Amino acid sequence: MTLSIAIAGAGGRMGRALVRAASADPRFLVCGGTERGDGQFLGIDLGALAGVAPLMMNASETSNLAADKAEVWIDFTAPNATIEALDALDGTPVKGAIIGTTGLSDEQEAKIAAHAERIAIVRSGNFSLGVNLLAALVEQAAQRLGPDWDIEITEAHHRRKVDAPSGTALLLGDAAAHGRNVKLSDARLKPHDGITGPRKEGGIGFSAIRGGGIVGDHDVRFIAEREVLTLSHHASDRAVFADGALAAALWVADKRPGLYSMRDVLGL
Amino acid sequence: MTLSIAIAGAGGRMGRALVRAASADPRFLVCGGTERGDGQFLGIDLGALAGVAPLMMNASETSNLAADKAEVWIDFTAPNATIEALDALDGTPVKGAIIGTTGLSDEQEAKIAAHAERIAIVRSGNFSLGVNLLAALVEQAAQRLGPDWDIEITEAHHRRKVDAPSGTALLLGDAAAHGRNVKLSDARLKPHDGITGPRKEGGIGFSAIRGGGIVGDHDVRFIAEREVLTLSHHASDRAVFADGALAAALWVADKRPGLYSMRDVLGL
Amino acid sequence: MTLSIAIAGAGGRMGRALVRAASADPRFLVCGGTERGDGQFLGIDLGALAGVAPLMMNASETSNLAADKAEVWIDFTAPNATIEALDALDGTPVKGAIIGTTGLSDEQEAKIAAHAERIAIVRSGNFSLGVNLLAALVEQAAQRLGPDWDIEITEAHHRRKVDAPSGTALLLGDAAAHGRNVKLSDARLKPHDGITGPRKEGGIGFSAIRGGGIVGDHDVRFIAEREVLTLSHHASDRAVFADGALAAALWVADKRPGLYSMRDVLGL
Amino acid sequence: MTLSIAIAGAGGRMGRALVRAASADPRFLVCGGTERGDGQFLGIDLGALAGVAPLMMNASETSNLAADKAEVWIDFTAPNATIEALDALDGTPVKGAIIGTTGLSDEQEAKIAAHAERIAIVRSGNFSLGVNLLAALVEQAAQRLGPDWDIEITEAHHRRKVDAPSGTALLLGDAAAHGRNVKLSDARLKPHDGITGPRKEGGIGFSAIRGGGIVGDHDVRFIAEREVLTLSHHASDRAVFADGALAAALWVADKRPGLYSMRDVLGL
Repeated sequence: MTLSIAIAGAGGRMGRALVRAASADPRFLVCGGTERGDGQFLGIDLGALAGVAPLMMNASETSNLAADKAEVWIDFTAPNATIEALDALDGTPVKGAIIGTTGLSDEQEAKIAAHAERIAIVRSGNFSLGVNLLAALVEQAAQRLGPDWDIEITEAHHRRKVDAPSGTALLLGDAAAHGRNVKLSDARLKPHDGITGPRKEGGIGFSAIRGGGIVGDHDVRFIAEREVLTLSHHASDRAVFADGALAAALWVADKRPGLYSMRDVLGL
Repeated sequence: MTLSIAIAGAGGRMGRALVRAASADPRFLVCGGTERGDGQFLGIDLGALAGVAPLMMNASETSNLAADKAEVWIDFTAPNATIEALDALDGTPVKGAIIGTTGLSDEQEAKIAAHAERIAIVRSGNFSLGVNLLAALVEQAAQRLGPDWDIEITEAHHRRKVDAPSGTALLLGDAAAHGRNVKLSDARLKPHDGITGPRKEGGIGFSAIRGGGIVGDHDVRFIAEREVLTLSHHASDRAVFADGALAAALWVADKRPGLYSMRDVLGL
Repeated sequence: MTLSIAIAGAGGRMGRALVRAASADPRFLVCGGTERGDGQFLGIDLGALAGVAPLMMNASETSNLAADKAEVWIDFTAPNATIEALDALDGTPVKGAIIGTTGLSDEQEAKIAAHAERIAIVRSGNFSLGVNLLAALVEQAAQRLGPDWDIEITEAHHRRKVDAPSGTALLLGDAAAHGRNVKLSDARLKPHDGITGPRKEGGIGFSAIRGGGIVGDHDVRFIAEREVLTLSHHASDRAVFADGALAAALWVADKRPGLYSMRDVLGL
Repeated sequence: MTLSIAIAGAGGRMGRALVRAASADPRFLVCGGTERGDGQFLGIDLGALAGVAPLMMNASETSNLAADKAEVWIDFTAPNATIEALDALDGTPVKGAIIGTTGLSDEQEAKIAAHAERIAIVRSGNFSLGVNLLAALVEQAAQRLGPDWDIEITEAHHRRKVDAPSGTALLLGDAAAHGRNVKLSDARLKPHDGITGPRKEGGIGFSAIRGGGIVGDHDVRFIAEREVLTLSHHASDRAVFADGALAAALWVADKRPGLYSMRDVLGL
């Protein structure tokens, strides 16, 4: 069985990653995609754009055209574009949507929730299967290991990233804090730098590496006097988020309308 | 509150590690220990033997003398010595025992079970809190991640270790296999060496590093096309097993008679 | 200043990686490329093929057409194609070549050497700057650290790789053996598996991980009783070899005719 | 051949580590040691203090007694004690000294230099063979790899350490800066935290992990767009510094008077 998907922003970095991943996997048929109206990629084959064999299909300018044969809509674009697309999907066969767009306003969140009464929507800030499972394991480890196990979270990203720690590192820190029944805002330590004194008991430390083109590494260490438990995730390609989105697309295809998370997809 | 413990084989490698760990922790009082009758260490203070401040107490030759004020007995010696000691504890105040001795015969196992009707006994082949939690997390990860996540277990130990993979690596492999609902004996791969062909789907790989004085490192990798989840344990000191045994001693002190595992201690 | 390069096999996996890397770097101008005569990609823009902005240039069928404006030729194809291309470059402005093709016969090697009397050629089995530097550092470390530092080389590659250990692991093993003034064939250990006895003094161990899509990780550990020195290389994208080839292209552009290695390029 | 050594502060943490390491190695004979006059350990056998077999020798209160049969003096105590001991060695057979004491004043440094006209002295802030070799390798790597390789230094130490980054991390940063022909004070980056903007080109980053009982881990990463070279050192036991000091003792035993560093010992 093949799942027909349409991809918003198919010529962008994430869109091309989705096309590459889907066209290499026989469970998917890419049956459409959109591109912004500035025309740079509009006349070019979606497969060629993504560096794979031609799909014999160009990007459409409108979502309803792109989705006219699709079962699932996948959207990692920008808030306004995502909301407009969901509005436009109404007359199409689309029954499920995967939304990785971040930075939505409360009003836009409410619109997504409204669409989720009609179709099944999976939303997440991180579609990697590995990261979502990691967060669940971190929460458990933090719950079982007492305060004599110091928690340190380190992350590494490319030199162009302008903030630290990463959103995913904070997500993992939240999981650890939740496991310990504390608030991350109370437990979070500043970077160890200068004359710091001994480590604060129960603190959760963060540190960040920035360099080159690192896609995203996250390590959560639980450090005792004579042993260390380390739970790590390494992403080697931004396409890892494409993989997770496609797994979510397969999962969502036969679900009832509603708003779901990656924890639902993974059964965590 | 202080827990009074007695330590079998207090002059041996593991016994000294137990004395060092217990005497550095105010929750414990070392109130006795045994040494084999060959006399090498019999006249020397138990603390000095372990390289810590004097405990003003020498090793005893018999278990019932060593345990005459103890609440918990800790034994990482040899099968015969362990059984004899349990027999001799009957008239002492000991209500709990931590047994890390390995290589017991079926008959000896039965004797331990019989003693567990009278006192609370925790038995394990690996008393590290970290390793036991790791095994539980590995089982879950293996259960949640499909067969497109290849499992590879690597371990590193000192150059004197004569077998590979380590018992703990196999324990982790069992946890992974259990999570996948397969038998480790069916899934286990030989080391990748020579012309191997592509990796067998669903296989669980093992590899071993041997060198120097490495105490014990274990990594379980779940490897997908574009991401890797790694769950690791690093022991920096053989005393890690002493730490786990002491944690088990605190736990067992108020338990009813019975035979318990480290999973019970950790609530896993 | 911009270097004009032509790329053999521009529609293949490595060719596309070269186009992507070169077109993102203002020091290079891709002025041509070849594709095999089966025509699949012949009419498609070289940039689009590679998933980047159009280069307004399609692949040529012949090397002399592709290279008619090039200063450096880059070739990671197959032995026959590489030799034919070098023969055909004679009337072009090409003064340097980067050859990453492997598996050449002695006769083909001789032909490369003959061409190196006319143009400057850099040849290597691994164009990663990092791996080549790593090999030099490993050799030095092995030379300075005595036999009480056990050497273990581990590598990880994708599940489709059919042999182990990797050629690069063996190259690193050679560097270590050279540093110790022994032959790798004498020092190489089989994988540690089963009842092995204590580690052989002076042995160089290898182990391999296979899984998912790992591009290529190599670790060389020097393990003493109480410390470990680890020298590692991690490739996150096959394009790493493209990066190295482009660095070699910049280096070779003003060199006299001759046959050079990556060690020459790096000044190692 | 056996080297006779005397150990200052033989009952302290580092002194006991030296006794343990030396008594396990047939190349050394521990022929004396000192202890502070507060008497806690004065009557106890030096071997028992260190947790090894008895050496049939107690600590002396004065250096000249402790050293009356020694060829090499090893001293990791405090500035005043170290200078007093060197003064007192004059009439003993001692021809070499290993000094790991830190925090000396300029005047005390001058006194050490004066003693080095009479005996051979090796001084260092870090006696680990591995760390000293690592620094040399880092310097070379920094020299060969251009500014598109971002340098990040991470270190991990136990929770009781009150400052960050570690002296060894700064030593490695100096080596990297020297390789790049810049000053570390110019290149050093603050921890990446908050809204930082893109990474500063040529910067050398530092981050620190604090937790449990970690003895000392140092990683130097050179991070390019698609590959990472990592040079790491892991100390699993404070005795690693004892190992280095003993290696220096063997080396210094037949050297002419003078002031030497660990780079001299290693021939780096």
